[in-house]
Amino acid sequence: MIEYEDASAEVRTVFDDIRATRKTEYINNFWKALAHDPATLRRIWDSLKEVMAPGALDPLTKELIYLAVSATNQCAYCMASHSASARKKGMTDAMFGELMAVVGMANQTNALAAGYRVQIDECFR
Amino acid sequence: MIEYEDASAEVRTVFDDIRATRKTEYINNFWKALAHDPATLRRIWDSLKEVMAPGALDPLTKELIYLAVSATNQCAYCMASHSASARKKGMTDAMFGELMAVVGMANQTNALAAGYRVQIDECFR
Amino acid sequence: MIEYEDASAEVRTVFDDIRATRKTEYINNFWKALAHDPATLRRIWDSLKEVMAPGALDPLTKELIYLAVSATNQCAYCMASHSASARKKGMTDAMFGELMAVVGMANQTNALAAGYRVQIDECFR
Amino acid sequence: MIEYEDASAEVRTVFDDIRATRKTEYINNFWKALAHDPATLRRIWDSLKEVMAPGALDPLTKELIYLAVSATNQCAYCMASHSASARKKGMTDAMFGELMAVVGMANQTNALAAGYRVQIDECFR
Amino acid sequence: MIEYEDASAEVRTVFDDIRATRKTEYINNFWKALAHDPATLRRIWDSLKEVMAPGALDPLTKELIYLAVSATNQCAYCMASHSASARKKGMTDAMFGELMAVVGMANQTNALAAGYRVQIDECFR
Amino acid sequence: MIEYEDASAEVRTVFDDIRATRKTEYINNFWKALAHDPATLRRIWDSLKEVMAPGALDPLTKELIYLAVSATNQCAYCMASHSASARKKGMTDAMFGELMAVVGMANQTNALAAGYRVQIDECFR
Repeated sequence: MIEYEDASAEVRTVFDDIRATRKTEYINNFWKALAHDPATLRRIWDSLKEVMAPGALDPLTKELIYLAVSATNQCAYCMASHSASARKKGMTDAMFGELMAVVGMANQTNALAAGYRVQIDECFR
Repeated sequence: MIEYEDASAEVRTVFDDIRATRKTEYINNFWKALAHDPATLRRIWDSLKEVMAPGALDPLTKELIYLAVSATNQCAYCMASHSASARKKGMTDAMFGELMAVVGMANQTNALAAGYRVQIDECFR
Repeated sequence: MIEYEDASAEVRTVFDDIRATRKTEYINNFWKALAHDPATLRRIWDSLKEVMAPGALDPLTKELIYLAVSATNQCAYCMASHSASARKKGMTDAMFGELMAVVGMANQTNALAAGYRVQIDECFR
Repeated sequence: MIEYEDASAEVRTVFDDIRATRKTEYINNFWKALAHDPATLRRIWDSLKEVMAPGALDPLTKELIYLAVSATNQCAYCMASHSASARKKGMTDAMFGELMAVVGMANQTNALAAGYRVQIDECFR
Repeated sequence: MIEYEDASAEVRTVFDDIRATRKTEYINNFWKALAHDPATLRRIWDSLKEVMAPGALDPLTKELIYLAVSATNQCAYCMASHSASARKKGMTDAMFGELMAVVGMANQTNALAAGYRVQIDECFR
Repeated sequence: MIEYEDASAEVRTVFDDIRATRKTEYINNFWKALAHDPATLRRIWDSLKEVMAPGALDPLTKELIYLAVSATNQCAYCMASHSASARKKGMTDAMFGELMAVVGMANQTNALAAGYRVQIDECFR
C-alpha cells in the first residue's frame, strides 16, 4: 500500500480529490492499493465519483445497490467499506435488514430460474 | 409449465394469491415452472411477498436491488421479469441507466479488491 | 462442432470411449465442440469418467451435485445435459424439486453470510 | 451478534426452535447475526427447516448439495458450518473427497460450455 | 438500441470515436444499448479504450484475459464479441483451446481451494 | 493438511513430481490439503501440469489468465499462490496493474451486457 507521504504527484492529486470529495482525511486501503497503478487509480476514482453522484437515484440508494452486488459476489472488503459509506448516508439497521432480505431472495430465485430453465415470457421480451 | 386449468387446489391457492396481490390475471412462467413442486411454490411466493412488501425500503428500491443481483448473476429471466416490475413501480430510463452504472462499477471494484487482496481497514471492522 | 465422420483418429478414440461408457451412439454437442482441441477433449473426458464413477457416492448423487453447481453458475447447457443424465440415473420430479429447493436456499444463505459478514464460529474452524 | 440472553421474545422463539430441532444448545453465529432482523431470522429458519427435512432426498444428500453451492460461491462461512452438519449426518472423508471432485469438475465444464458457446442439443431441450 | 441516425450529438461523438479507433463502420449492439445513457456510454468507452491500449501487456493478451473473465461469468454476449476481437488481433484455434483449458482448470481449482478451505501459505502473504 | 513425512507412497509420488517440475522443495498448502484424496491430488496435478505447460500460449500468459479467473471468483488463496507463480515467470508490477485493469473492466461490461440484455450481433454468431 502506498501512503500519502510516499505518493507521486499524480497519486497525491487523486488522494487530495478523495479527501475533498468525501470531506475526510482518511484514505481507505482500496485506494492505497490501487496507487501502485496511478492510471487505474485515477480512472476508477473519476468513474466512481461520477457514478455515485446524486442523479435520478439518490446517493443512499446507490450505496444499497453497491452492497447488493458486493454480497452477491462475496466481496468482504466491499461489504465492509460500503456498509460504512451507506451508514454515513443514512442507512438504518432496518434498511440494512431489508436490503439483505431482498439480496438473499434474489440470489435464491436467480438459481431457481436457471435450474428450472424458465423461458422468458413473451410479454417480458 | 403448469397452467391454472391443470393445477391442483394447492397450486391454485398460490396462483390466486399472486393474482390478487399483483392485481393482474397474468401468472408468469417462473411460477408455472415452480408449480411442479407445490411446497416450494408456496414457500418462495410467501417469502417473496413478505420481502418485497413496503417497509423501511420502498418497493421500487427493492426492485432496483433485485435487478442489481440479477445482472451480477447473469440471470436473463430475472432481468426480464423484474425490469417489467420495476417499470410498473416507477423506474424511469434515467434510473435504470444509473442503476446499471452502479452495478457495473461495483462488479469492477469487487474484482479489483480481490485481485489486489486489499486488507479491510481497521476502522471498517 | 466436429462430427465423428470428420474427426481425427485421436478424437475418434475418445468418441468411441464416450459411446462405450454411456452405452449410446449419441455424442452430445459439448464433446463435439471440445474436439477442436483434442488434448483438452481427452483430458476432460478422462477426468469426468473417473470423477463420476461410482465410489463413496453413487452416480445419481454425483449428478445432483453437478446440477447444483450448474444452476448456481447459470450454465444453461450444463443444466440441460445433466438434467437428462440425472433422469436416466433415476432422478424423479420430487427429487429434482427438493434439489432445487436446497440450491435456492444455499444461494440465499451464502449471500446473507457475506452480507452480514458472519465470523466463522470457533467450533467450526 | 445477538446472544440468547439479550434477545427479544420473538428471537428467543426461533432460537428455542433451532435448539430443539438440532438437539444442541449451540446457536451458531449465522443466526445470532440474523437476529438483528427478527422477520428475516424467522423466515430463513422456517424455510431452511422445511427444505432440509428428509423427503425424496435424504438429509445427508441435501448437505452435500449445500456444500456444492457454497464451494462454488466461495462462501467460507457456509463451507465451515455445513461441513460440520454434513459430518454429523454421516459424511466420511471419502465422500467429501468425491463431492469436491465433482464440484471442481462441474465448475470446470460450466466455464468450458460458456467459453465454447455450446448450443443445447435438440434432444435436451 | 439506438442507431447512429437516431443518436444525439453526444452519442454520435462516441460512435465516431469507436469507428475511428476500430477502423470499421460497424458499431456493435453493446454500444447501441448503452447509448440510452450517454454518460455511461462515454465513460465505459473511454475507460475501455484506455484499458485495452497496448502497454506492458499487448492487445491480444488483454483480449485473452477479457475472454477468461467472460467465460467464468457465463456472459454469452461478451464471449461472442470478444472472441471476434481476439481473432482479429491474432488468436489462433490453438491459442483459444489453451485459453479455455486454463480457464476451466482455474475455475476447478478455485472451487477446490474454497471447498477444502485452504489456508494461505505464510510465504504467499 | 498432510505433510510429506506422513504421506502414503501414492501421495509422495505426486509430491516428488511437484518438486521436480517446479524445481523447489516447497509443497504449498493446496496440495497438502488435496492429499486427503490421493486420486484427486494426482488427477488435478497431472491436469494442471499439462494445461500450464508452454504451448501456443507461453507460461506467463497462462498465469495471467489464471489470475483473471481467480480475481473474478474472489478466490483469495488462488490470487495469493498464482501471483507468486506469475512473478516468478516474469510478471512485473506494470503487467499486474494492466491485468487488473482489464479484469475490472471485463467484470463491469459483463454485468452491463446482462443488465441491458444485449442481443448478440448477427456477425458474431
